[in-house]
Amino acid sequence: MHLSEQGIYYGDYLQLDKILNAQDLESEKAGKTAHDEMLFIVTHQAYELWFKQVIYEIDSILCLFEQPVIHDNSPDFYTIFHRLSRVKTILQLLVKQIDIMETMTPLDFLDFRNLLRPASGFQSVQFKVVEAALGLKQPDRHGELYYISQLRPEHAAAIQKIEERRSLLELTNEWLERMPFFKDAGLWERYAPAFPVQEGLHPFWSDYFQLYGLSLLDNERGNLTRFERFFINDEETPFGKLSFEARRNALFIMLYRDFPLFHLHYQYLSLLLDMDEMMSTWRFRHINMVNRIIGLRTGTGGSTGKDYLKAALDRHYIFNEIAALTTFLIERRSLPVLPAELQQRLGFVVK
Amino acid sequence: MHLSEQGIYYGDYLQLDKILNAQDLESEKAGKTAHDEMLFIVTHQAYELWFKQVIYEIDSILCLFEQPVIHDNSPDFYTIFHRLSRVKTILQLLVKQIDIMETMTPLDFLDFRNLLRPASGFQSVQFKVVEAALGLKQPDRHGELYYISQLRPEHAAAIQKIEERRSLLELTNEWLERMPFFKDAGLWERYAPAFPVQEGLHPFWSDYFQLYGLSLLDNERGNLTRFERFFINDEETPFGKLSFEARRNALFIMLYRDFPLFHLHYQYLSLLLDMDEMMSTWRFRHINMVNRIIGLRTGTGGSTGKDYLKAALDRHYIFNEIAALTTFLIERRSLPVLPAELQQRLGFVVK
Amino acid sequence: MHLSEQGIYYGDYLQLDKILNAQDLESEKAGKTAHDEMLFIVTHQAYELWFKQVIYEIDSILCLFEQPVIHDNSPDFYTIFHRLSRVKTILQLLVKQIDIMETMTPLDFLDFRNLLRPASGFQSVQFKVVEAALGLKQPDRHGELYYISQLRPEHAAAIQKIEERRSLLELTNEWLERMPFFKDAGLWERYAPAFPVQEGLHPFWSDYFQLYGLSLLDNERGNLTRFERFFINDEETPFGKLSFEARRNALFIMLYRDFPLFHLHYQYLSLLLDMDEMMSTWRFRHINMVNRIIGLRTGTGGSTGKDYLKAALDRHYIFNEIAALTTFLIERRSLPVLPAELQQRLGFVVK
Amino acid sequence: MHLSEQGIYYGDYLQLDKILNAQDLESEKAGKTAHDEMLFIVTHQAYELWFKQVIYEIDSILCLFEQPVIHDNSPDFYTIFHRLSRVKTILQLLVKQIDIMETMTPLDFLDFRNLLRPASGFQSVQFKVVEAALGLKQPDRHGELYYISQLRPEHAAAIQKIEERRSLLELTNEWLERMPFFKDAGLWERYAPAFPVQEGLHPFWSDYFQLYGLSLLDNERGNLTRFERFFINDEETPFGKLSFEARRNALFIMLYRDFPLFHLHYQYLSLLLDMDEMMSTWRFRHINMVNRIIGLRTGTGGSTGKDYLKAALDRHYIFNEIAALTTFLIERRSLPVLPAELQQRLGFVVK
Repeated sequence: MHLSEQGIYYGDYLQLDKILNAQDLESEKAGKTAHDEMLFIVTHQAYELWFKQVIYEIDSILCLFEQPVIHDNSPDFYTIFHRLSRVKTILQLLVKQIDIMETMTPLDFLDFRNLLRPASGFQSVQFKVVEAALGLKQPDRHGELYYISQLRPEHAAAIQKIEERRSLLELTNEWLERMPFFKDAGLWERYAPAFPVQEGLHPFWSDYFQLYGLSLLDNERGNLTRFERFFINDEETPFGKLSFEARRNALFIMLYRDFPLFHLHYQYLSLLLDMDEMMSTWRFRHINMVNRIIGLRTGTGGSTGKDYLKAALDRHYIFNEIAALTTFLIERRSLPVLPAELQQRLGFVVK
Repeated sequence: MHLSEQGIYYGDYLQLDKILNAQDLESEKAGKTAHDEMLFIVTHQAYELWFKQVIYEIDSILCLFEQPVIHDNSPDFYTIFHRLSRVKTILQLLVKQIDIMETMTPLDFLDFRNLLRPASGFQSVQFKVVEAALGLKQPDRHGELYYISQLRPEHAAAIQKIEERRSLLELTNEWLERMPFFKDAGLWERYAPAFPVQEGLHPFWSDYFQLYGLSLLDNERGNLTRFERFFINDEETPFGKLSFEARRNALFIMLYRDFPLFHLHYQYLSLLLDMDEMMSTWRFRHINMVNRIIGLRTGTGGSTGKDYLKAALDRHYIFNEIAALTTFLIERRSLPVLPAELQQRLGFVVK
Repeated sequence: MHLSEQGIYYGDYLQLDKILNAQDLESEKAGKTAHDEMLFIVTHQAYELWFKQVIYEIDSILCLFEQPVIHDNSPDFYTIFHRLSRVKTILQLLVKQIDIMETMTPLDFLDFRNLLRPASGFQSVQFKVVEAALGLKQPDRHGELYYISQLRPEHAAAIQKIEERRSLLELTNEWLERMPFFKDAGLWERYAPAFPVQEGLHPFWSDYFQLYGLSLLDNERGNLTRFERFFINDEETPFGKLSFEARRNALFIMLYRDFPLFHLHYQYLSLLLDMDEMMSTWRFRHINMVNRIIGLRTGTGGSTGKDYLKAALDRHYIFNEIAALTTFLIERRSLPVLPAELQQRLGFVVK
Repeated sequence: MHLSEQGIYYGDYLQLDKILNAQDLESEKAGKTAHDEMLFIVTHQAYELWFKQVIYEIDSILCLFEQPVIHDNSPDFYTIFHRLSRVKTILQLLVKQIDIMETMTPLDFLDFRNLLRPASGFQSVQFKVVEAALGLKQPDRHGELYYISQLRPEHAAAIQKIEERRSLLELTNEWLERMPFFKDAGLWERYAPAFPVQEGLHPFWSDYFQLYGLSLLDNERGNLTRFERFFINDEETPFGKLSFEARRNALFIMLYRDFPLFHLHYQYLSLLLDMDEMMSTWRFRHINMVNRIIGLRTGTGGSTGKDYLKAALDRHYIFNEIAALTTFLIERRSLPVLPAELQQRLGFVVK
């Protein structure tokens, strides 16, 4: 077989003329030798390529979630789940990619460090878009408006536009709210006869409240108050990210994840926690790397990269309110049995 | 070929009768079903097996370092380096091993959690021995004496015994002190004529001090004071882990690592930073895991595992003073040329 | 808080007296120094610990599959899926664990190699049990009966016992056969009017046969014959592992995986391929490692470990017939639309 | 601080306008929906970026090796070692990157597969350049000239040009030849009195030959012939990659790696084996991936990618002759003691 003149050619398809000719060394321009600047550029470009892919996947997920309804029998939720799994796999690689940057020693970095000022990874628009699309709002960012001052107006605007769109966190909240387990599933009727009901309190929750109390150790009793605020009294949570309804439904999914309808839902909620875990692990390893390469000096952008990352590490968890729901689980063997009609609705058609 | 009656048999050699019969489930004793307790036990046993190996390697390293002298031409330092590399590889696996524990969901853990009280990973004697052998002293531990209260006297004593032995950090400090670069290498004579020397100040350092100043950005000027305190005036450092002499020699190795004598030395110093990085990454991922599995509840030991780990994460860096030396590097192209005689001493015999 | 005299103590619970006192060095007995023998022992013990866990998980999966029926609305299939995912995670670690063994250099291994004869990893009963439980039958093993000659009778018997139990492959085949998509789902009726039907040929398949042909490149036309033998004529396949019914249903799941009922089923089939991938990757890295450590010499067991592993690598794929189904997929956009009644049966109850 | 108008801006420096605008989907041009084509493009682009970096590092290594002499006291060999370590780290990432591609299911690939014909990863010029720069010659390639027929003339020429340059394997061979351990180190004189010397046989080797024989098991006796052909009689080896002198010196380094001069040399030889290991692991995982995604179909380039990769996996080992040297090691405790003068030359200057 000979190379066909027609058809697609690998290098053209991948536009390698662009990709492989986008590395101009500042050290070369300055007439200095700095072998490792190539690594510095290529590594950051690889990050940006993957950020593009991550944004592409998350955008497609947001579009699916923005539909008025995600029918349980459509493939949409499966698609969401599958694509978010892929994002997780990519983030795992991005953490691993730090291994490569760590092969650059401090002395090698000094060869070209000052030539890059004031450019900084801080100016990665795409990374901030990823954070915003997942649900990090500007007021929750460490430094709040600081990063905008470092960006060109069009780039700051691009980030702001994403911040105005409903994020994955918000859309997940809405999706959780739409699940009407308690409203119309007969839960009330099942419990009403059996328990003395506080006025205004759904008996499922008063029942559950009691079971939860029984499963606590002595030094965990403070959690009862939290439980009441979170699931019974609809008081604002410390985070305020999930609505009262969404919180309840998310906990419900975690508890009854063994029902078919919840298999994928539960895996999805776990994936959200993976997002936070991978993003924070990336920040953590990034801190360690920066520490090793520049010590107590400042980053090329002028700020102490390490301190910023440290603050971001502590503050930028997005799905922590979902993680916190774990606090309120009880032993599976104590779970209230669901009414038959609800059980049926959580499963497949049976002839 | 038939199975020889003589000779060694795989299962006997590995004492699998012990290893594979050391898993008794508390849930079984209590007549409850808790499938994941086996995973819980096996994972912790795998950790303890590897801790044994880590201790075995570090102990052999300490023994080599405890010799009055490590001759540059003996294989000892290479052996130290090789074994510490192995420890790093093992620690990387231990971080990865958390992936397995994370396959245990919160609900599955609740099945047997309360049966284990008050046992806790906190009571891992071997882990504390690893920390102590590397250089973590009791007063630097978060909670200081707390952990001792959780251990049997003989176990607390075992840890204390290691704390009294010279640690890897201390032995590294001594080893660094023994390198007499400045004392007898003619460095003084080389610089004396060329620079106006402050009284009592070694001209190499005043020279270097100036070069370092030139390589700083405006907002890094505060580092000059640090430099003076660290390398010129012998004032106590914030950490106080490396002596004045050791600090100077370690920086010298980092600067002149291109000379043959320093190749392995430099790799060794980098390995120490890897130790901190792997231990802290392990703590970090551990925190995330604990957070996911028990949320805001307490660990089986009664304390909030997450808070302890968080405090340990921030405080238990052992080789941070070596990491901080990075702050004081200058561009390789500006490095003072070493006197010929010293250059010779840093290399191989040349006929 | 003080250490309670009652309750469980970490070290007792984990039976560390057994685990940490099961390392006796042959080199020590022989009065020789061989530092790395400890690593050799501990690494193999860690492998055996994890094999125990893998067997524990697979056994629980087999038990669930051995039930006469796995009701789609029971949690059983989800449990199977979850536990097999865990096995995958463990196998990933076991591959990574080779990194540690590779820190042992050839020269270090020679220090104690001859003392271990004729023991060999070949004698790992548990590893052979894992292979058998997944579906590797003795006649398919490279060397067939050879390994039995290396084992004590009771160990050979233990493996044989597992070989006689229905394996994961066989139980998966049965589970696939029980899915009655074509028998009673109206597929026949839907297609019958539209296509001229060969005698005895289900119209869904003749329809699909045509579509598949359209999606093939010229040089793939040979696959049409395969298709006919696999899915239409019920001729024996080269592997003969999946029955005619099971093959059809597995392909059906792959094609229509977007329907809720198939979400987990499809993930499960993918996991089976992961099993083969991880086992073969382990064998492959094992070969490379053996090659590096003993070169062309023989293993401690007397055979050339490398050649055995190489033959096993090529022959011991268990789920390759499922992997091969990929060959017969067509573009999603060309998939025949399923009859409404069947669509309904593949989804959740909708009120 | 406000964004400076002067200075370097992150996005400009990385030329993100090129990098992030180089993804045109064929499916989009064809008016079809194929979500995963973006992943396909980005993943391949990330590979090509890293290949560029790998070539950059290897090229710099070749340049250093092409010097007439690498002085033991120059930093060059350390630089070579450091950069090749980095290549290893990058290759490890490239293996891991397959995880991402595996998130593309067969059905998703079919959405756009036929649109790409006849482009193929086979046409990656850079990958072939990497292979050639390491030492893979065209006649040793599976398929020999086949791949050239798939490339544009300028691309085939680029590969050929690298094939004509001395490869890392050849330069390593020359570097090994330059080490004059046996010629002028008094080895001959040390052994001459002690052993009855065969005519023309260096007594070090006859001595070693005997020791090696003693360390062999019965079924390894055939290796003695190999030893004679490899190290004593200078007969062509099966591979013919290392010259007689180079083989001897490489074995010598492996045996006496505990001497300072050999620390880095030994690590370097190990790194070469890592190259083969990572490249072959990449091929192996690639095979598995291709198998899962296209089964028995053909790749987009028209050939059966899997078969090509399989053949390449078996044939494309480059440094296997170095790996094979392991076969000829003897116990460290039996090693002939080197003459004092040679010992001195393998170490540092001692005052």
